[in-house]
Amino acid sequence: MRLAELSARSGVATATIKYYLREGLLAPGRQVNATTAEYDESHLRRLRLVRALIQVGRVPVARAKEVLQHVDDDSLGRTIRLGAALWALPQDPGPDEEDTAVAAARQEVDALLRRLGWETSRELAGLSPVHRSLVTAVATLIRLGYARDGEQMAAYAELMHQVARRDLDFLETHGSEGEKVEVAVAATVLFEPVLRALHRMAQEEESARRYGLE
Amino acid sequence: MRLAELSARSGVATATIKYYLREGLLAPGRQVNATTAEYDESHLRRLRLVRALIQVGRVPVARAKEVLQHVDDDSLGRTIRLGAALWALPQDPGPDEEDTAVAAARQEVDALLRRLGWETSRELAGLSPVHRSLVTAVATLIRLGYARDGEQMAAYAELMHQVARRDLDFLETHGSEGEKVEVAVAATVLFEPVLRALHRMAQEEESARRYGLE
Repeated sequence: MRLAELSARSGVATATIKYYLREGLLAPGRQVNATTAEYDESHLRRLRLVRALIQVGRVPVARAKEVLQHVDDDSLGRTIRLGAALWALPQDPGPDEEDTAVAAARQEVDALLRRLGWETSRELAGLSPVHRSLVTAVATLIRLGYARDGEQMAAYAELMHQVARRDLDFLETHGSEGEKVEVAVAATVLFEPVLRALHRMAQEEESARRYGLE
Repeated sequence: MRLAELSARSGVATATIKYYLREGLLAPGRQVNATTAEYDESHLRRLRLVRALIQVGRVPVARAKEVLQHVDDDSLGRTIRLGAALWALPQDPGPDEEDTAVAAARQEVDALLRRLGWETSRELAGLSPVHRSLVTAVATLIRLGYARDGEQMAAYAELMHQVARRDLDFLETHGSEGEKVEVAVAATVLFEPVLRALHRMAQEEESARRYGLE
């Protein structure tokens, strides 16, 4: 397809597509003559991912480039490739090591992961920005004096594990190896707002059922 | 307790506490003489909530005041009071009504709520900012061409309903009526980052189990 059709099908303005091409976020089309290039479904798919990252995930352009490099690096296995791409996304802030609540939070997270049997997550503890985000979030609960109990946290984790299983089941049915990583990154960025809204809506629904709307 | 102890127990600097007092985010203490006021557990609890809103939820001070007015309005029933407080929190953006994907998303959300039997959420559709956030998130999926199926969305919603049931079970065991609304607002702000981190970590864990770490 030509640039105009790529723009129409993706809903991205041609000027924006040209900008993404210049910045290397989108591979060049196949040049058919001096002024015309031909694009295919892989360009459309990539363009959707770039939009998801930049417009929904509010990922800066330089950071989006880094994410895409990991997505395209087929020297890596799928978990590492997906992990590298997801880790390059903007993360919640890491813990402030000066804070005494952080050491307590780290122990609590470690106890949780042991209880759950999440061995990979324990192995990745020193590396993963997701682990750091969880430690930060738990440290905040500790610092503000909010009660947590191990059983409650484990129950939340098991539910989020069920969500993650569905995420991956969905990927199994979607496209080639390269596409799977693309879809996974987009899904992380695009489905988190869906899950957050469903959670808040479920709170309203359940609260109304238990206590009425008076 | 005196201001110094309130500061030590909450981890909030005395200058910041004085600022919250001036701004009306914290009720004045009981004046024991011209220069000294006495604070109690309710001040400590409120201070923790204010910190959760401002530091973790990044709620602007004026908005935090509005949230607290709803928390304190005991003319309202619990669902409405909690709803009003939660609705005053910063929300994901509402849908762009010019966007043709929005009408399709609204239909999809309505079909989902019917399927789930979430009648209150359907009744609140025109009012709730959470409903608007969900429509926006689904419209983005539609616009970017990401497949959704009703069964998958319903399964995610059922899982988030289980999370919400646990949220409310936790509240049942925590404190007086006024405290419940305070704890609920803080929990929404403080637990969302925990759930997001648990979700991403579960994705890593599940991916490693299915595909290995190679």
